[in-house]
Amino acid sequence: MKSYREELWFETKTRRAYLNITAHVEAAVKKSGIQEGLALVNAMHITASVYINDDEAGLLIDYDDFLEGLVPQGGAYRHNETGEDNGDAHIKRQLMGREVIVAVTNGKLDFGPWEQIFYGEFDGRRKKRVLIKVIGE
Amino acid sequence: MKSYREELWFETKTRRAYLNITAHVEAAVKKSGIQEGLALVNAMHITASVYINDDEAGLLIDYDDFLEGLVPQGGAYRHNETGEDNGDAHIKRQLMGREVIVAVTNGKLDFGPWEQIFYGEFDGRRKKRVLIKVIGE
Amino acid sequence: MKSYREELWFETKTRRAYLNITAHVEAAVKKSGIQEGLALVNAMHITASVYINDDEAGLLIDYDDFLEGLVPQGGAYRHNETGEDNGDAHIKRQLMGREVIVAVTNGKLDFGPWEQIFYGEFDGRRKKRVLIKVIGE
Repeated sequence: MKSYREELWFETKTRRAYLNITAHVEAAVKKSGIQEGLALVNAMHITASVYINDDEAGLLIDYDDFLEGLVPQGGAYRHNETGEDNGDAHIKRQLMGREVIVAVTNGKLDFGPWEQIFYGEFDGRRKKRVLIKVIGE
Repeated sequence: MKSYREELWFETKTRRAYLNITAHVEAAVKKSGIQEGLALVNAMHITASVYINDDEAGLLIDYDDFLEGLVPQGGAYRHNETGEDNGDAHIKRQLMGREVIVAVTNGKLDFGPWEQIFYGEFDGRRKKRVLIKVIGE
Repeated sequence: MKSYREELWFETKTRRAYLNITAHVEAAVKKSGIQEGLALVNAMHITASVYINDDEAGLLIDYDDFLEGLVPQGGAYRHNETGEDNGDAHIKRQLMGREVIVAVTNGKLDFGPWEQIFYGEFDGRRKKRVLIKVIGE
């Protein structure tokens, strides 16, 4: 069994942002040399998500509107009594998920026609990491 | 290390549907010959989910009512300005999840007493796929 | 390839509870002897979650307030017509997720600075299980 590990670093200019990171993950799978296996891609921070969906500009706004409507940044959060201001971001991240697992087949991400991997940032403007771990043969 | 890959195809008659696919996944694990490992089951489309929960008719209605109440099909979505009409389905799928990972132990899905694998369709009436990838030994 | 399996048992005193189980998972990874691989941690019951986020008391209240506000225990659920009273718990669990996959690197959980693994119970006061399955080398 082989394994491969890589970190991606991001610093978004806005508090919330949605970045297509598919090409980074594809490159990591290629570097791993793994032909058949599983690729884990997860946010290493607890106010960010990794998720899979469509890369369509309107949809990214829909996600943001939905999350901000349901869990507004300016809402009342007990977490913020610690001096933090990101209570909303911890909840948004749970709704969008921490991680994805993608099958690796013939050395490539085994994707349906529109699947793209996104980094969803809910408390940005500082350096944060995504972990890629590939195992297989 | 062994690996096994299989696709399942579905075409639901209704826009939204919840199908118990556990027997298909069990059969795939058996065909794989893998005794100890992990089975990934994921929607290959971005308006559908694979999730694990109870196969109880009332609960399926509860899920549908909850999702449609929170993210109504007839709502205003920027994504729909592209000519699509499935903005709601992209959000519903995020809430229910894209994939599950199930442990394989002694050649079987290592499940608690009521766990069943479901395909959740939020924009059906056309052919769509689920991927099963099993790795292990 | 090696694999390792362990069950954790919990019986919470309250209907809903959020337990930090990171030390249990770390101990399981150590017992597995696996240096490089993936650790799956999943609820084996369908009214409970395993998720990763911060161990901060205010945040646990925020999660609980959010879930109970959106999916109240006393709401009307078709599932409860079966004689159950946990329709809400099946929906809460979907929002928080069933499972996490954590990379294992150099024999340890490969975590960002604040990642902690939680068991989220939404229908407790009885014995329920979490499965840990580690594969790798």
